[in-house]
Amino acid sequence: MPREIERKYLLIDERWREQVLRSQPFRQGYLSDHRSGRASVRVRLKGDQGELNIKSLELGSSRQEYEYPIPASEAREMLETLCQGPLIEKTRHWVDYRGQVFEIDEFHSDNAGLVVAELELDREDQPVEAPAWLGPEVTHLPRYFNVALAQRPYCQWSSAEKAGEDAD
Amino acid sequence: MPREIERKYLLIDERWREQVLRSQPFRQGYLSDHRSGRASVRVRLKGDQGELNIKSLELGSSRQEYEYPIPASEAREMLETLCQGPLIEKTRHWVDYRGQVFEIDEFHSDNAGLVVAELELDREDQPVEAPAWLGPEVTHLPRYFNVALAQRPYCQWSSAEKAGEDAD
Repeated sequence: MPREIERKYLLIDERWREQVLRSQPFRQGYLSDHRSGRASVRVRLKGDQGELNIKSLELGSSRQEYEYPIPASEAREMLETLCQGPLIEKTRHWVDYRGQVFEIDEFHSDNAGLVVAELELDREDQPVEAPAWLGPEVTHLPRYFNVALAQRPYCQWSSAEKAGEDAD
Repeated sequence: MPREIERKYLLIDERWREQVLRSQPFRQGYLSDHRSGRASVRVRLKGDQGELNIKSLELGSSRQEYEYPIPASEAREMLETLCQGPLIEKTRHWVDYRGQVFEIDEFHSDNAGLVVAELELDREDQPVEAPAWLGPEVTHLPRYFNVALAQRPYCQWSSAEKAGEDAD
């Protein structure tokens, strides 16, 4: 069973921008409601590539995940006509730190102000070398799930929530 | 935009069984909740073939539809661990009547007793040649959506509902 092991962090400043390898705009939406189901179903357009992704809605760093490429034109139609709630617009930056590649998502529109770093791991107990710009870990907070952001965007969060406090 | 145009009917007797071309067992489940979303997301195992299907939840004979083949092992895992509610188990029979191929679904387990014929059309106003065994049309009744059957199976229906009456 394919599993994604991933930890998620806030960022404390902008120094990571000096280490960006490349960036790409992502536009994504959800065909599922994270409040009722057992999985999220995500449609994503990254550049001119379409993608369908299915992920278990488990809390913690390890989740079951399936990903399938689809035609960009079909992804675009699904985003425009079938997805629930506002779409997620973000720029993904790939940042190298001592051989670890962080994926840093800088959100736009309703989620502007939110920047989150994700690190994919091979195993759950793998040690992470933390760069100076890495902030508090938010892996276990469901409001940071992108599927949750599509329903309750960052612009509606309290200041405690924005600070990464355990308010869920 | 790929659209499926389809009409759905009940059957009044068993005479269609004499015209079956072939049959295949289907097992399917849903990653979406038809009460909250704009699309159904279906995982299906037909024989040893996996399939992911996304369909708009519109009423009427025409719906937007996308279908992607996926590995059977992944379909099986999703059915077992990520789908909502009980799975739909049915046998699909292909039946030829004067060059029109009806897909007749004979449901099992919680939906046992329900048999429905579907006919795919090229356009919405295409005339249908009705065989003698074809019963009332139920295209417009949402309780006959397979995604709805996964949440409120046939064994829970009233007799009026089972007769195809417009009780939704």
